[in-house]
Amino acid sequence: MRTWQTPLALDRADPAPLSVQIARALAARIRAGALRPGAPLPSSRALARTLGVHRNTVLAAYGELAAEGWIASDPARATLVSRDLPPVPRGAAGAPGPAARAGFDLPPAPSDATWEALPPGTLELLGGTPDPRLVPVAALGSAYRRALRRREHLAYGDAAGHPRLRAALARMLGEARGLAVDADGILVTRGAQMALSLAGRALLSPGDGVAVEALGYRPAWESLRLAGLRTVPVPVDARGLEVERLEALAAAGAIRAVYLTPHHQYPTTVTLAPARRLALLDLARRARLLVLEDDYDAEFHYEGRPVPPLASADGAGVVVYVGTLSKVLAPGLRLGWLAGPPDAIERLTAHRRFLDRQGDLAVEAAVAELFEEGEAQRHAWRTRRVYAGRREALAAELGARLGGALSFRTPAGGMALWCRVAPGIDPGAWAARALRAGVAVQPGRLFAHDRRARPFLRLGFGRLDARELAEAVRRLAGALPRRGQRSGASGA
Amino acid sequence: MRTWQTPLALDRADPAPLSVQIARALAARIRAGALRPGAPLPSSRALARTLGVHRNTVLAAYGELAAEGWIASDPARATLVSRDLPPVPRGAAGAPGPAARAGFDLPPAPSDATWEALPPGTLELLGGTPDPRLVPVAALGSAYRRALRRREHLAYGDAAGHPRLRAALARMLGEARGLAVDADGILVTRGAQMALSLAGRALLSPGDGVAVEALGYRPAWESLRLAGLRTVPVPVDARGLEVERLEALAAAGAIRAVYLTPHHQYPTTVTLAPARRLALLDLARRARLLVLEDDYDAEFHYEGRPVPPLASADGAGVVVYVGTLSKVLAPGLRLGWLAGPPDAIERLTAHRRFLDRQGDLAVEAAVAELFEEGEAQRHAWRTRRVYAGRREALAAELGARLGGALSFRTPAGGMALWCRVAPGIDPGAWAARALRAGVAVQPGRLFAHDRRARPFLRLGFGRLDARELAEAVRRLAGALPRRGQRSGASGA
Repeated sequence: MRTWQTPLALDRADPAPLSVQIARALAARIRAGALRPGAPLPSSRALARTLGVHRNTVLAAYGELAAEGWIASDPARATLVSRDLPPVPRGAAGAPGPAARAGFDLPPAPSDATWEALPPGTLELLGGTPDPRLVPVAALGSAYRRALRRREHLAYGDAAGHPRLRAALARMLGEARGLAVDADGILVTRGAQMALSLAGRALLSPGDGVAVEALGYRPAWESLRLAGLRTVPVPVDARGLEVERLEALAAAGAIRAVYLTPHHQYPTTVTLAPARRLALLDLARRARLLVLEDDYDAEFHYEGRPVPPLASADGAGVVVYVGTLSKVLAPGLRLGWLAGPPDAIERLTAHRRFLDRQGDLAVEAAVAELFEEGEAQRHAWRTRRVYAGRREALAAELGARLGGALSFRTPAGGMALWCRVAPGIDPGAWAARALRAGVAVQPGRLFAHDRRARPFLRLGFGRLDARELAEAVRRLAGALPRRGQRSGASGA
Repeated sequence: MRTWQTPLALDRADPAPLSVQIARALAARIRAGALRPGAPLPSSRALARTLGVHRNTVLAAYGELAAEGWIASDPARATLVSRDLPPVPRGAAGAPGPAARAGFDLPPAPSDATWEALPPGTLELLGGTPDPRLVPVAALGSAYRRALRRREHLAYGDAAGHPRLRAALARMLGEARGLAVDADGILVTRGAQMALSLAGRALLSPGDGVAVEALGYRPAWESLRLAGLRTVPVPVDARGLEVERLEALAAAGAIRAVYLTPHHQYPTTVTLAPARRLALLDLARRARLLVLEDDYDAEFHYEGRPVPPLASADGAGVVVYVGTLSKVLAPGLRLGWLAGPPDAIERLTAHRRFLDRQGDLAVEAAVAELFEEGEAQRHAWRTRRVYAGRREALAAELGARLGGALSFRTPAGGMALWCRVAPGIDPGAWAARALRAGVAVQPGRLFAHDRRARPFLRLGFGRLDARELAEAVRRLAGALPRRGQRSGASGA
């Protein structure tokens, strides 16, 4: 029993219990051939002594090894390495196993697939990123535990989402946003990203054209392209998407749908003008266009009256409304929805079954409870005030430190400022220098359908508190490039 | 103040707090026009008295209404309906709002989109459905609460899955299944369904052919078809997929990939013969075929040595391995994975970002903890014994009550029996009668690529305990159709 002269290496820092470590170590020796089929193992007492652990720890380890077929007991009740072992798999024996590169040909990657992780310590002055420090985790955790007690939440269930969450969302959309939608008009998705991906696949056909904002949300465009759709850019001005231009596109059959962010336009933060709202709904009704309305931050409107969504004024069934709880609760929950005519929701749900089968019913039930008890509403109310304060703080810091380099109109809502960069300053170069200085900002080019530079920076205030915002602006100011570099000269 | 003669209807059975109910009721009256802009509201004291609630309850309601812009305070500090109200949205005013039917043209639905809910009280003798009553919910709930304390779990994160879960899965696949895979060779998905959907979209191109088992898993085929792929059926016999037939298909360029369930073939439960395993890997290496291996119930092998996955013997990087925690933990968690060459995983992750952005990091971290502490392994070990016992129980009940009508070979693993129906019995008619008698079973036709009837029933034993299995078989026997109906006569 040579192996036992070299005792098993146990690591008390390892989070795994000692019994699991012992079972792992023995299985590894058996797989490696150090312990051969039929070889006797020490008695649990002897091994416990050798390792200085309680005998029950060894018995637990032997129990798991037996259950996995690695060891067996002989008639004399001694413990042996099983004579009927799993064939030693190449991989485990140290052979290459899965190769480093695929042995088949990979198709091209999505065109916007490059996402880089930020260096640690970077302050994120990024739009649309809420502050996870504000999430009511205690209430959420308790609600989840309660939800798990209902065992059906762990089984296969409704692909359209938990009925309680669908009902809670329908009520919220009715009361806070004026949509007349029932639970059967709602599909709960994994955040807005899945909602957009599903809409592109289930409501349109490959080759269809979709009008999008020429300055807009790139991940949505990529989801639509991956569904085989063409994205057709339409300019955005101070009153939002230039709806007038859609008439000709629709008449020419160049578009079957319009994807837009009318509430706080992404990234420019402007609100779609009332006349254009009416014109868009009228055109969609006449041309049977799908209007895919992305209302990603409806909750965060700080001044005057919140503008109701297009969906609240849609009597023709042309609007499919995309929303998310990423901003009001947390992105990590991955909860969003599609709201629209029941037959469209049914079609979307049919596709969803083959995409990921269904959502996480326990998490959906837990969040439904937060809505039923008003906790989610109170949280939205609290955080709205927090973000309004951060908006003021960022605006003040920018005015004080960068008044000459940046100009902006403070938006009525949202989580970001769209700042015009003074002539002679290259926003791409500035953003690059800022990142090296420890603050992440987004230059206009990132939002441009044509990928050409624009004299803007988008600065988000959701993620950082007042103190952090001040430090972020300090770093941004320190990274300001010398004037005279031609704008657009470097990459944005 | 006429409105106050008719007090607000508060429902103490409603789970929502009274303050939320009051706010809702007032907002509804304002939206409905019953309370006009500028109309005075009663003092919090007066309304509290009218409603018989604590004054703080009314103050909380007024606070939320003010935050939402419905009400305001005048200089004299009286509370008024806001003069700057949101325009009354049609929907909320009772107009149709979203129409009952879409105002745009819906493309065709997926061909297998019809899923029917079972009547309550139905006993599910269905394959692949584990028993949620066995899930360690206490440990899971506590782990989730701990995970929520790490606020980064609520933010945007790695689309490939939580690093801890990727590492735990890599370790599990190495120790229990012989795969030599690191964390960077794993993508955590929303169950196997998303894994298959992603593989079809990210690793193949529209128009590509995929060989599938002629008797197999329909939801996987549909995911592949929705990715624009062609499914090419290949027969299955007692030794699994007839691999010999693939050579010609590959030579003709008719297939770029093979999707199969080699461990316990779905639905027939047979294991792919060793010679065919080697032949398949050799062909794939030579023809650069993608082998999409679906090992949906690897944990549940009860006799002899567990057969290692094809992926454990793949040195050429041709196998992408799909697995799920739906069986070992719970379907409701929606956790699965893809394991394969890192460049393929990277490509899959790039697509995943545009599908649903990322997983639920808190749930992923919680499940990672269950693996790190050995709880998941112990649970798999416990449930393996439970399911082995249920397999015996179902086999015994069938032998006792239906020996003449059904014949089967008890499989070495899995969660179902594949039962041949005696000549003269129509399995479709039997299944239909059984459902009316309160037991759900699946006739062979449901698994057939050609949708033609087969003289088989698939009976799952995962979901039911011994007592329930006995009752289910009793109902099934009671529903046995009279002999003499020609097999295949009615729909399955």
